[in-house]
Amino acid sequence: MTLPFLAITSGEPAGIGPDICLDLAAAGLPCRAVVLGDKNLLKARAQILGKNIVFQDFDPQRPSEKAADGVLEVFHIPLDAPCEAGRLNPQNAAYVLRLLDTAHQGISDGLFAAMVTAPLHKGVINDGAAAHGFFSGHTEYLAEKSGTPQVVMMLAGGGLRVALVTTHLPLKDVAAAVTQPRVESVARILHADLRDKFGIAAPRILVTGLNPHAGEGGHLGHEEIEVIIPALENLHADGIDVRGPYPADTVFQPFILKDGDAVLAMYHDQGLPTLKYAGFGKGVNITLGLPFIRTSVDHGTALDLAGSGRADSGSLIVAVETALEMAGHEG
Amino acid sequence: MTLPFLAITSGEPAGIGPDICLDLAAAGLPCRAVVLGDKNLLKARAQILGKNIVFQDFDPQRPSEKAADGVLEVFHIPLDAPCEAGRLNPQNAAYVLRLLDTAHQGISDGLFAAMVTAPLHKGVINDGAAAHGFFSGHTEYLAEKSGTPQVVMMLAGGGLRVALVTTHLPLKDVAAAVTQPRVESVARILHADLRDKFGIAAPRILVTGLNPHAGEGGHLGHEEIEVIIPALENLHADGIDVRGPYPADTVFQPFILKDGDAVLAMYHDQGLPTLKYAGFGKGVNITLGLPFIRTSVDHGTALDLAGSGRADSGSLIVAVETALEMAGHEG
Repeated sequence: MTLPFLAITSGEPAGIGPDICLDLAAAGLPCRAVVLGDKNLLKARAQILGKNIVFQDFDPQRPSEKAADGVLEVFHIPLDAPCEAGRLNPQNAAYVLRLLDTAHQGISDGLFAAMVTAPLHKGVINDGAAAHGFFSGHTEYLAEKSGTPQVVMMLAGGGLRVALVTTHLPLKDVAAAVTQPRVESVARILHADLRDKFGIAAPRILVTGLNPHAGEGGHLGHEEIEVIIPALENLHADGIDVRGPYPADTVFQPFILKDGDAVLAMYHDQGLPTLKYAGFGKGVNITLGLPFIRTSVDHGTALDLAGSGRADSGSLIVAVETALEMAGHEG
Repeated sequence: MTLPFLAITSGEPAGIGPDICLDLAAAGLPCRAVVLGDKNLLKARAQILGKNIVFQDFDPQRPSEKAADGVLEVFHIPLDAPCEAGRLNPQNAAYVLRLLDTAHQGISDGLFAAMVTAPLHKGVINDGAAAHGFFSGHTEYLAEKSGTPQVVMMLAGGGLRVALVTTHLPLKDVAAAVTQPRVESVARILHADLRDKFGIAAPRILVTGLNPHAGEGGHLGHEEIEVIIPALENLHADGIDVRGPYPADTVFQPFILKDGDAVLAMYHDQGLPTLKYAGFGKGVNITLGLPFIRTSVDHGTALDLAGSGRADSGSLIVAVETALEMAGHEG
């Protein structure tokens, strides 16, 4: 049986990315999780952490069987400068981008079935790799590289899936950003990816209102009446099963959740606190709308934990498992 | 041992209030839960539901032992007009207010240790009791009656407590309503009531930011820097243990929650979805800042469920238990 190759970008070298990637060697995954990063960095981090790991250079020609327990398969991409756990070095910014570029190229070439990304640090990339243009995040970088006009952020964990109409905006700008075209296009991407990448034949999407109590019939805001309900009507007309708008504090109750495959929330703090509470350190971030599968951890670089042995690889392992499951559904 | 009397207002007679109050007869509570409402209405609802309950007129002189299992102690307040389950009748609006007035008077007279309110219907009260002035809600009515300038809404359930800086506002108005004086006054009320009504000697309050990622150092909004952090500094100076601002999608993680007695969220849909998810039908709404103890169910009148046998009394029973626990802490 041929096992799929997954590209795992180890991210910011001074953060916990390398630490958590090491745990893949013992995760017993039914795939070949290929860690993209500097082999010597990974070895050094393993030594600090007292982990006994056999490092093996990635060789796509080698028979596709699961790497043995305790073996980490590494696609070696050398650092540009020395790296110390916990200390950012702008000289390694271009290295971090090379990890992404290599993973993307490997996917385009049909080598990797999916990409899973460990965290990077936006600030140091902008400091150290300004020649690449302003870097606003992993997701935006991959969207641009693949010529994708719109992506959707979805988190999964604890049995829930939550996608967002808007993401990283100041709260005061959210209401104006929730437009009818945006609600519709996000719902269409979510619908298509639930069907094509999650294998759900007829996805059911539970949509929240923007306002408390979903506006309470116009008493607590008009966006439900003027924006969201018209969007849902258009989506219905196209055969997309969207339901709502539900009050955000009701939609996560079991008697409503049972009727949906995902919740579509209007903004970040309306949807993600409950998802992360339910996910309990095992959340995974999934970028929908890309022409390939990409999952990510739901946490940051945690510089203070790098090399400490206190980094939790739970989210990364779930991110790999999720990507693998999605790869199985893709046609 | 003297058991405390608790006033349970049965709320809108056409809703599920009477249904759920009937379940108090078998709840085995270590108090005398006195249901305020029309005795005949309660009897009729019990009959519809096939519940075998002995109705006993409330008599404060009767020895203070727990009412026997299956016995409901009723403070009879007659309806003004006939009531049919599920059909609102504006002619009974003044009746609903009399339940509240009677409970409030009983508390002022030292008869009741606390008030627990079943749901009412704002619309029909404004239709039927316009002479009383505009009715904007239970909480506002009780605040005005008791001359309380500011109250705070807190929900508890599933081991969490979440209080809100702002409550029922359209989302677009939230950012402007989160002012430094408001954050401070709400935190002070929360602190005082956690200490005085919950018996927590040194309450620790976890405060969220307003923006995603708590503004990410100003990259995703400035209210944390300009409003919330200065408020926290003033509160600290007065010896109030407030911590944060935390990103709302992080504050509910166990490693942060363990350091707090309550979360103070900036707005409704930032705090309540997670609380209600964790509470799972057993949430209780607590009004802080009043000169007496008042708890409430966390749901509405559910007119379509009245008389159906499908109403869940879980939230009411927890509301009574919470009020009782609070009454035990009050000096």
